[in-house]
Amino acid sequence: MSFDDRLKECARQVNACLGTVMDGWADLPVVHGMRYTVGGGKGLRGFLVMETASLFGIPDAQSVHAAAAIEALHAYSLVHDDLPCMDDDDLRRGQPTVHVKWDEATAVLVGDALQSLAFELLARDALGGADVRISLTGTLARAAGARGMVLGQAQDIAAETAETPLTLDQIIELQGNKTGALIEWSCEAGAILGQADPAPLRRYARAIGLAFQIADDILDVEGDAAATGKRVGKDADAGKATFVSLLGLEGAKARAKALIEDGEAALEPYGAAAENLRQAARFVIARQN
Amino acid sequence: MSFDDRLKECARQVNACLGTVMDGWADLPVVHGMRYTVGGGKGLRGFLVMETASLFGIPDAQSVHAAAAIEALHAYSLVHDDLPCMDDDDLRRGQPTVHVKWDEATAVLVGDALQSLAFELLARDALGGADVRISLTGTLARAAGARGMVLGQAQDIAAETAETPLTLDQIIELQGNKTGALIEWSCEAGAILGQADPAPLRRYARAIGLAFQIADDILDVEGDAAATGKRVGKDADAGKATFVSLLGLEGAKARAKALIEDGEAALEPYGAAAENLRQAARFVIARQN
Repeated sequence: MSFDDRLKECARQVNACLGTVMDGWADLPVVHGMRYTVGGGKGLRGFLVMETASLFGIPDAQSVHAAAAIEALHAYSLVHDDLPCMDDDDLRRGQPTVHVKWDEATAVLVGDALQSLAFELLARDALGGADVRISLTGTLARAAGARGMVLGQAQDIAAETAETPLTLDQIIELQGNKTGALIEWSCEAGAILGQADPAPLRRYARAIGLAFQIADDILDVEGDAAATGKRVGKDADAGKATFVSLLGLEGAKARAKALIEDGEAALEPYGAAAENLRQAARFVIARQN
Repeated sequence: MSFDDRLKECARQVNACLGTVMDGWADLPVVHGMRYTVGGGKGLRGFLVMETASLFGIPDAQSVHAAAAIEALHAYSLVHDDLPCMDDDDLRRGQPTVHVKWDEATAVLVGDALQSLAFELLARDALGGADVRISLTGTLARAAGARGMVLGQAQDIAAETAETPLTLDQIIELQGNKTGALIEWSCEAGAILGQADPAPLRRYARAIGLAFQIADDILDVEGDAAATGKRVGKDADAGKATFVSLLGLEGAKARAKALIEDGEAALEPYGAAAENLRQAARFVIARQN
């Protein structure tokens, strides 16, 4: 199956899993908002879970619960990120954000409940032995919290009022937390499920996670709102230091390309089985949204 | 040890556990806000975990991680509940709420990170075998999410704009989700840790959880801001249906007392070992804040 088809197929399975889990839940805005939010994106993180898991012979029917968990957790972070007191975005993936479509209180609750849902999914029996599931739980909780994603968000907020713009090393650290931690978890989840050494997948994840963020900064300069589905040019407007402002447009592109090559190199131990993950690395910097 | 002393002793152990876990975390408002929030209350939920666990011979050094988890999760719910778009409270336990002391973005992140921290604590090795830990994870995720606490919050919001006030049955259901789900988890956690039948503790938890909320409604009418540490009279001001508006002040007191008696009766299988839990049931309706 080609990368494009596999990406869509994983998203389809993740959405089916989430639909089944939330079947029959209350007919209230919070549940509508949860359904509205999850499954709206490309599903890259869920794909990474299922594709790294398949390297170790873990069937989709097992890994999909962890894939659904990371998509729920990622969705929560987007809903809260978009809040007026955070990034104040009213458009996400070309659609009104949750606090615009409903209200702020609902958006807070949607995010909160999506985070709970992520951990509920990791506890499901179908995901494997208790030792595997609790390992996934502990690592995701750490990646999501105040030493992972939330730390990155807090560093981002602190940077806005700092007297001097961030250095390249500081942006790399910030993005490694804000975006990288969940991407890293997605790739390591496969190794945890397969009870295998996570080191090669961690190297792959760190390379593509950083490339992903550099590509975001490039899209913020070169993209248009129609293709990206969100407001563009906002970093430059805000005078924020970005990979583009620090490396220049060509420098940023060269750095992203080098990272993708390193990510592909990290996959060598897995041979041809990792072809879709190699394609995913290239996709990360080629995407238009 | 008397109930008062045991309640304080559990809170001391929980705060020590949380302090150790968060030791060395980033010097940023989000982490300061987390430390500011957890450990500020009475620690009733943590006490319930440790005291029900001790019924089955589980030592404090083991159960304290689950007690810290529920206190972190409860603290997250308070921080988000107090947000301007939710209850808009600027005083909690007699202190400025997180969004007042810092700002709204920090309050959103503090709550988010405290929820992650709760699940990180449940994954800790010291809490017991993987099967016990993943069972605690799955039950807490469910109790916290859109079929538990968040459902109750969403029902509460829906009630505010409903054309007719809630009936008694609807308030009991709402509060069973909003407040009851976490209290129930706290009491069942002991049985999960002890791999024992949770039925008697579930009955105890349901009785005291409802009594707790009836007592809150009574305090909202009879209490004063100095003793409760928060704004009073706000339910009546908002024209909300409460246990007091539906049952009358004396009727509400009688119902709470009957529930406490049922809660105490549920503890019979444990004999004298449950004395502090009996005292806790009485404390729930006798407290002034």
